[in-house]
Amino acid sequence: MKNLGNKFKLIPGGVTAPLGFKAAGIRCGLKKKGKDLALITSSVPARATATLTTNKIKAGSLLASRENLKRGKIQAILINSGNANCATGKKGITDAKEIIKTTAHTLGIKEKSVIFTSTGVIGVPLPVELIKKGIRLAYAKLTRDGSSDAALAIMTTDKVQKEISISLEVKGVEIKIGGIAKGSGMICPQMATMLAFITTDANISTNCLRRALKLAVDKSFNAITVDGDTSPSDMVVLMANGQANNEEIKTEDKEYLKFQHGLEVVCGHLAQEIVKDGEGATKLIKVIVKNALTTQDAKEIALTIAKSNLVKTAIFGADANWGRIINAVGYSKAKINPERIDIYLGKIKVAENGSYMKFEEKKVKNILHQKEVEIVVDLKVGRCEFVVLTCDLTYDYIKINAEYRT
Amino acid sequence: MKNLGNKFKLIPGGVTAPLGFKAAGIRCGLKKKGKDLALITSSVPARATATLTTNKIKAGSLLASRENLKRGKIQAILINSGNANCATGKKGITDAKEIIKTTAHTLGIKEKSVIFTSTGVIGVPLPVELIKKGIRLAYAKLTRDGSSDAALAIMTTDKVQKEISISLEVKGVEIKIGGIAKGSGMICPQMATMLAFITTDANISTNCLRRALKLAVDKSFNAITVDGDTSPSDMVVLMANGQANNEEIKTEDKEYLKFQHGLEVVCGHLAQEIVKDGEGATKLIKVIVKNALTTQDAKEIALTIAKSNLVKTAIFGADANWGRIINAVGYSKAKINPERIDIYLGKIKVAENGSYMKFEEKKVKNILHQKEVEIVVDLKVGRCEFVVLTCDLTYDYIKINAEYRT
Repeated sequence: MKNLGNKFKLIPGGVTAPLGFKAAGIRCGLKKKGKDLALITSSVPARATATLTTNKIKAGSLLASRENLKRGKIQAILINSGNANCATGKKGITDAKEIIKTTAHTLGIKEKSVIFTSTGVIGVPLPVELIKKGIRLAYAKLTRDGSSDAALAIMTTDKVQKEISISLEVKGVEIKIGGIAKGSGMICPQMATMLAFITTDANISTNCLRRALKLAVDKSFNAITVDGDTSPSDMVVLMANGQANNEEIKTEDKEYLKFQHGLEVVCGHLAQEIVKDGEGATKLIKVIVKNALTTQDAKEIALTIAKSNLVKTAIFGADANWGRIINAVGYSKAKINPERIDIYLGKIKVAENGSYMKFEEKKVKNILHQKEVEIVVDLKVGRCEFVVLTCDLTYDYIKINAEYRT
Repeated sequence: MKNLGNKFKLIPGGVTAPLGFKAAGIRCGLKKKGKDLALITSSVPARATATLTTNKIKAGSLLASRENLKRGKIQAILINSGNANCATGKKGITDAKEIIKTTAHTLGIKEKSVIFTSTGVIGVPLPVELIKKGIRLAYAKLTRDGSSDAALAIMTTDKVQKEISISLEVKGVEIKIGGIAKGSGMICPQMATMLAFITTDANISTNCLRRALKLAVDKSFNAITVDGDTSPSDMVVLMANGQANNEEIKTEDKEYLKFQHGLEVVCGHLAQEIVKDGEGATKLIKVIVKNALTTQDAKEIALTIAKSNLVKTAIFGADANWGRIINAVGYSKAKINPERIDIYLGKIKVAENGSYMKFEEKKVKNILHQKEVEIVVDLKVGRCEFVVLTCDLTYDYIKINAEYRT
C-alpha cells in the first residue's frame, strides 16, 4: 500500500468493514477443492453501479443479472468460482435466473435486488442443484466478519486472496469503503477475467457513485494486463448502503473528491494485487509512459509494452533488453518521434533520443532482479502520462495454462 | 508442401535455382558462433519490389536501403544476422551507407543497386569493420549453389533453415522462383522480425511484380503470428532478372496468374516454415475462420485467436478448452452473432451455436496431440474466410526469450 495519503486509515474487515454488510464464503462442491461460493449482503437495499465486460460473448449469469444492476438497488451478490456459466446458451440464462430466485427466497428479499456472478471453466452447464444447496449454507454462515471467507471463495487460479478496507471522513462523519477481488489470468483492460466487489456505507447519490466508479476503474482495473485476454464474466460492482448516515454526497464537491480518492485507493490496491498474483508472475512491472501528446497515446503505448511477450520474458530473465521496449513503442498505434524517446529501467537511463547509450549493465541487472520493476518511456513530445501494471511471463504461466482444464 | 498443384515442380537450389543468381553465406564474427553474413547477387540488375516493416522504429540499414529499393533495380542483397543496426541513431544510417558502398565497390556494381539488411540484437552499434572484411570473403565464396549457405547465414533464433524453389512454365518457357527466409520470434502480421528473399528469372514488368508480391504476402507472411510483436527490420524482397527470356509478363492475364500462383506457393511455404520454427513451438496451429461477414472480420478474429496466449498454451497442453477460443472471438473487434458460432478442433465439432455440446474428449485429445492442429470457427453470418497460422506457446519460448541477449 503506497501513496495511501494521510486522509485515510487502513482498517480491517474488507467488504464487511462498512456498516450493514455481511459476507460468507463456503464450499458447495463446484471446484475440486476449496471454497467456491461467496455471498455478500447489505441490511438494506444499496445503491449500486457496475462496470461490465466488453467481451461480446457474455456469461449467462451476467445477462440474467444485468437488468437488476440497471435498476440500481442491490441487496445481495452471489458469486460462484467453479463454473463461468458461459457459452451455455439460453439454458445458462434460465439457470442463472433460477439461482437468483432461490437466493432472493432464502434471504427474504426481492429477486430484482440480487446479482449472480460466475467465474471458472467456460462451456460447461451450471450445476444448479449444488449451488441451490450452497445458497442455504452460505446464508447460514453470513457474518459481519465474513469478508476473508468471501475473498477466498471467489478465487480461481489466484494464489492469494485480495482484500482491503479503509475509513475516511466525509462531511464530518466517518465512512468506510471495503473491497475484495479475484483474477490472475485473462486480465486485460476493459474488464478481463476479474471480479471486484466494493462496499461502502457512505450516503451518496447514484450519479456520483457511477462517476466515481468509472474514474477509479479507468485508472486501476482498466490499466492492468496479465495476458491480454478479456473475459466474458467480469465486473466491478460498487454498493453504497448509506448506513454511515453522512449528509448525502450529491454534487462533485470537495467531499465527493474525498470519496473519489478513497475509492481510487481501494481499486488501485486491488488491481495491483491482481497483477502481483498474475498467473506464474514473479515480478510486478510498472510501465510509465510520459510526455506523450495525448493520454490516449500514452495509454496505447503503455499497454503495447505491457502486453509484449518479448518484453515480459526479458524482464523475467532480468535482461536489460530495452530494444524490445522501443520496438513495442514502434508498433503501437500512437504518434511518436523515434529520435526523441528516452528509456529508463528503474532510475537508470538506458536509451537516449531513440538510440543506445552506455549504462552500467550490472546496476541495471540489480534493478531487474527486484520484485518490482519500473519501465519509464519518455516520449518528449507532449505532457500526458499513463501508467499500466503488468507482470512477467514465466515458465509457470505456461504450466498453469497448459494444464488448467484437465 | 501441401496444395502444390500440378503445374509446379519442386526443384532444388533455393534462391540460386533461377538463372543468373549466386549466393554465399559466411561467418564474419558478429554472432557468438555460426555463419552471420549472406550475399545474394544477380548477374544483371534485377527488377525488384519489397514489402517493408510497418514498425515506426526503423532499422538504420532499412532506412539506408529504402531509396535503392524504390528505384526498383537491384543487383545485390547483403544480410547480417548478428546486429539489427536499430536504435543506433544517425550513425546507424551512416554505417549502413558505408557497408553498401563497400559492397558495390567489391562487386563492381552501382551503389544504388545494393540493399543491406540487418537482423539481430537491437540498440548496439554496427561492427562496420568486421562486416567490411566479411563482404570480401562472401564475394569470394559466391556460387550458383550457395543458397543453403545464405539461408543458414540469415538465421537468428531459427532452428532450421528455410528454403524452397519451384519451376513452372510461363508463355511456353520454363521459369524458376526460389526463396529463403528467416524468422521465429517477433513474428506478427505486417512484416514482423522476418526476412524473406525471393528470386526469379522470369521476365515480368515491375507493376506486375509489385502486385504479385503484395497479394502473395497478404496471404502468407501477413497471415502468421508467433508472438504478436512486429519488428523494425523486416522485409520481403523479390528480384526478377529476366534471364529465363520468356516473353515479358506485363498484364494480369492467364500467364501472370501462373506466376502469381507460383509466388504464393513459395511465400506460403516459407511462411509456414517460419511458424513451425516459432520460438519454442511444438505444434503448428491453423486457425480457419469461415462464413464471416467480411474478409476483414475473418482476419481480425483469426488473428485474435492466434495471438491469445491462453489458446496457445491450451493447445500446447493438448487441452480441448474451446472456451478460450470463443472467448477470443468475443473480444475481437469483428461483428459476430454469439449464438451462431460453431467451433471445430480438427474435424470434430466441440461447440454449436455458441454453446457446449457433447463430444468425445478422447478423440479430440488425439487430434490435439498431433504436430498440426486445426481450429475452425464457423461464424455462420456471411461467406468470407481467412486462415492464420500460428504455433503453441511453450516453456521453451520462455527459455529462449528470457535468455536471448545475455
